Amino acid sequence: MSDAKSRLKEFHQKISDDLQRSVDFWIKYSHDEEHGGFINCVGADGKVYDDTKYSWFQSRQVYTYASILRTAPDVVKDKAKMLKAAESGAEFLMNKVKNSDTSRCYFMTTRDGRPIKYQNSIFTETFYTMAMLELYEVTKKDIYQKEGIAMLDKIIYWAQVDDTELGNTPLAGHTPSSFLAVPMVLLHLCQLPLPAEKKKELKNVEEKCVKEILSHIQREGSVILEYVSPDGKELPNSFGRHLNPGHAIECGWFLLQYAISTGDKELQKTAIEKFIVNPFKGAWDEKYGGLFHMLDVDGFSPTPLGWDMKLWWPHTEVLIGFMLAWKTTQDSQFLEKFQQVFDYCHDHFVDKENGDWFGYLNRRGEVTHSFKGGPWKGCFHAIRYQIICRGILHEAISNQ
Amino acid sequence: MSDAKSRLKEFHQKISDDLQRSVDFWIKYSHDEEHGGFINCVGADGKVYDDTKYSWFQSRQVYTYASILRTAPDVVKDKAKMLKAAESGAEFLMNKVKNSDTSRCYFMTTRDGRPIKYQNSIFTETFYTMAMLELYEVTKKDIYQKEGIAMLDKIIYWAQVDDTELGNTPLAGHTPSSFLAVPMVLLHLCQLPLPAEKKKELKNVEEKCVKEILSHIQREGSVILEYVSPDGKELPNSFGRHLNPGHAIECGWFLLQYAISTGDKELQKTAIEKFIVNPFKGAWDEKYGGLFHMLDVDGFSPTPLGWDMKLWWPHTEVLIGFMLAWKTTQDSQFLEKFQQVFDYCHDHFVDKENGDWFGYLNRRGEVTHSFKGGPWKGCFHAIRYQIICRGILHEAISNQ
Repeated sequence: MSDAKSRLKEFHQKISDDLQRSVDFWIKYSHDEEHGGFINCVGADGKVYDDTKYSWFQSRQVYTYASILRTAPDVVKDKAKMLKAAESGAEFLMNKVKNSDTSRCYFMTTRDGRPIKYQNSIFTETFYTMAMLELYEVTKKDIYQKEGIAMLDKIIYWAQVDDTELGNTPLAGHTPSSFLAVPMVLLHLCQLPLPAEKKKELKNVEEKCVKEILSHIQREGSVILEYVSPDGKELPNSFGRHLNPGHAIECGWFLLQYAISTGDKELQKTAIEKFIVNPFKGAWDEKYGGLFHMLDVDGFSPTPLGWDMKLWWPHTEVLIGFMLAWKTTQDSQFLEKFQQVFDYCHDHFVDKENGDWFGYLNRRGEVTHSFKGGPWKGCFHAIRYQIICRGILHEAISNQ
Repeated sequence: MSDAKSRLKEFHQKISDDLQRSVDFWIKYSHDEEHGGFINCVGADGKVYDDTKYSWFQSRQVYTYASILRTAPDVVKDKAKMLKAAESGAEFLMNKVKNSDTSRCYFMTTRDGRPIKYQNSIFTETFYTMAMLELYEVTKKDIYQKEGIAMLDKIIYWAQVDDTELGNTPLAGHTPSSFLAVPMVLLHLCQLPLPAEKKKELKNVEEKCVKEILSHIQREGSVILEYVSPDGKELPNSFGRHLNPGHAIECGWFLLQYAISTGDKELQKTAIEKFIVNPFKGAWDEKYGGLFHMLDVDGFSPTPLGWDMKLWWPHTEVLIGFMLAWKTTQDSQFLEKFQQVFDYCHDHFVDKENGDWFGYLNRRGEVTHSFKGGPWKGCFHAIRYQIICRGILHEAISNQ
């Protein structure tokens, strides 16, 4: 076996073991047998420390389970159990999380599904759509596809036509802006499995998203700004200088997937260079390793607490980004970068004892938040990376 | 000179120097000569990195300037300039920050005073009241007292009668709670200089605040929980277990001031033991020094980013708390504790080069955010501590 092949096999094996531990963790500790859906807030050892339900992670766990069943069923010991949990999550989402009068989704509910609060954004609804469309793929039950498409249509309206229904009533000093996360998640939704006719209808929506995404490339192509003006100019103040490297890189691989699907070579290059390589270079901490969470493009001190922390999710995005860049270009520099991030993650984030990843490290790479599930972390990012990268590695190994 | 007296003189000198540097910093870098009020976001070197105005700090700087002019005028090189800046801030507050139709204050405005957003809480209005009442004390201009009292009456209504006007429309899963910060700031407002007749009228309000504050003492007197039920019981989940040591201690010295003013010895003891000593003990980091920002009473991992950081303001609160406890009891243990925190602060927060304090350190005590002014930090906490503690030390030295 060549050195190159054995290296790929080593990645594949380590990621498979990591995936197995992640899946086992969530199956064991997070199912709410009493009220349906999932318990989100679980410690490193699986202990529940809060029973509030966070809808992002109700949806994301449904999506993740469906995605595992569709693309990595070999790691599932009890498929019926996993499917049942995913459908229980979908029931909870349809009956408790979605307000059927408005189609808006609650951001938080009590364990038994009484609403606590909304967010003024499209993200809870985005994850709802992902859950429904992916669950349709494994069940082929029309209700899920119908729910997913109906919500997607609402999101397109809120993102590209009028967002008044999200509860945003701008005051006189409001600065209109394009927030990278919005066209990014909408482009991703359009890339999910959908009927051919719907896909065709979405072509314009996708093109509009791509145009908006590209307007975030600033300073002669060297940076991706998180907020720009609606006509693609830099905005003043911290807000206008804000860098969110994880978002830029996640957007990069969404854009790369789109560019692969359309065969647009120039856009593939832009996605890789501008959205993956540059933000990675700009955010990698040369002193302690890992990616900074947030930065200011002019080097001012960012104001949010924890800007210098190392969070798990940007690392999963960059692993997917480099793996997909390598697959697309076969340029070994991307496999080297993948290795660099992979080693950091295995040394710092992966919990080999209890399964799944720690989410929050300080700048030095020490775990500061020991839980596996919380308001902003759950069954999603680590597994999405494991499934995608394992799939690409499997194919590469098979073809060699 | 006795050792005890020379120690007090050393504190006094160091604090006076620190105060002088703080005052010089804000005078030099933060006045908005063009639009009135203050520039909030300034770097360690005084460089403006954002011109958004944060109303908490528009008000707090007016309060601080008036407070300096009233109680520490010797550190002001140009009193007319400082007073003019304070009055310019008050104009900005009355004309731009307060919505005169509703008496609600905007949380953020543009530099020229166009509103950006509200908070759904009473805090912006609280600092508005503090600014007006303190500025009245140095100017004796009726408009400020009138503004301060009118806003105080609104706050009493929102805090103790009905908060619907704050924009809170609870959903079905909302958990009603008492948030310690609310009775705490209201008690503090009632303690500000006010006409005797108004003071009398506020007696009931104060007693109601004290009762609500005391309901936060939980677990047989060992902890102060940030949120309890309206009838003073523990609440479930992370929310119910949340400890905010800085708030508890700040509340402690507000309560101690109140107990001194009413001559209530038992309440003085409660304020010192339950609200200052216990939260300090529970939050002091034995490994690296400094107070943790947030904790979970059962030792679960807190979920907010930066829970383990060392922030400047809880340290200023505990310095005031121990100094006031020492003044009240003459028990030297409080001066020892004061020394412990004072040394930490002088080694870590005080910027002897540029003036004022750094605001944000990681757990190890390294500066992570270099600015002096930002959305949540400005001309207030360090100077409030410097003025109060310097005043107490001055009195103690004079009496010895």
